[in-house]
Amino acid sequence: MVTVLDQLVKLLAKLPGVGPKSASRMAFHLIKTDKEYTARLATAISEIQDKIFPCSICGSFTEEDPCPICSDPNRNRTLLCVVEQPQDVLTIIASGSYDGLFHVLGGALSPLEGIGPADLNFSGMMKRLAEGVFEEVVIATNPTEEGDTTAMYIKHLLKDKNIIVTRLASGLPIGGDLEYADRLTLARSMRGRIRYQD
Amino acid sequence: MVTVLDQLVKLLAKLPGVGPKSASRMAFHLIKTDKEYTARLATAISEIQDKIFPCSICGSFTEEDPCPICSDPNRNRTLLCVVEQPQDVLTIIASGSYDGLFHVLGGALSPLEGIGPADLNFSGMMKRLAEGVFEEVVIATNPTEEGDTTAMYIKHLLKDKNIIVTRLASGLPIGGDLEYADRLTLARSMRGRIRYQD
Repeated sequence: MVTVLDQLVKLLAKLPGVGPKSASRMAFHLIKTDKEYTARLATAISEIQDKIFPCSICGSFTEEDPCPICSDPNRNRTLLCVVEQPQDVLTIIASGSYDGLFHVLGGALSPLEGIGPADLNFSGMMKRLAEGVFEEVVIATNPTEEGDTTAMYIKHLLKDKNIIVTRLASGLPIGGDLEYADRLTLARSMRGRIRYQD
Repeated sequence: MVTVLDQLVKLLAKLPGVGPKSASRMAFHLIKTDKEYTARLATAISEIQDKIFPCSICGSFTEEDPCPICSDPNRNRTLLCVVEQPQDVLTIIASGSYDGLFHVLGGALSPLEGIGPADLNFSGMMKRLAEGVFEEVVIATNPTEEGDTTAMYIKHLLKDKNIIVTRLASGLPIGGDLEYADRLTLARSMRGRIRYQD
């Protein structure tokens, strides 16, 4: 009926996690809201791909090359955290629990989806490790089948490299309820149980 | 850290139903997706407020005045459905259960939020009804306290007008489970129970 509105709803519905109903709620909001805001949002969307690109060292998204993390002299340059996606870097930074460097693989190994070692940035990782500065690789791929496969592959690649290889702990989410934990998470959390130190 | 990205995330997070996490998922999607799509989305957002405005007759959003519904000769011009918001018009049209005309009030009466009769378009509604063509007013305000109050107010306005006044039925949602129905919905659905016709 209203074609401009329909178009906007269809475009919004292509965003991840947005269905037709929420797209239409957003569109109606955009019609009624402060016009300066819609202008700023439109500009931010149209410019994002020109301003953000992958860091040539770690592969995470940045506005300058190398990225602020890679060029930060205050970070621990003996620690390398390997993640699947650029957004994982921000998530880990936001947790405030890590002060080392990062390496973005660009995905996880998935035979089913035809993603093999050549499709991910393992060669860049090996090149960085070959420089001999890193002492520990923290594997922070997702706790999924693909992420686990990728972690095993990295462990295999680094077998004789005299580098400590660790993996993020899996277990019950903080604030979660035992009753609602799935079987696999519970099993992992049981296997990985921590002994209290006296 | 990445300021352009932060800005986009903050702007996206202002959309209804979008929190910081989904805003950041959207932003990362926008970085990586087809560039023609981001350009079209940006244009659609920046133009929407110039192209869409309220219909001078019914108040629903339109690109032309009067709106395609008000000017459609095939719709039943004796039926007037009164709704709170422009988006309610689309929802009812999409249900395929109504072929009459609409009137958008622009909200619901809410003493708590200071919204009184003068803030809603009751005068426009009365003017349209005074033309003597409408035979039935279908009140389709939300089944909330504010929507019910507004419905009662309309019923009161039309008391001596020789117009049939109806209200959308409330009850259990189709496909819903009795166990999960809230008390009020269940009570309404009990009060409004339908007798099987032989």
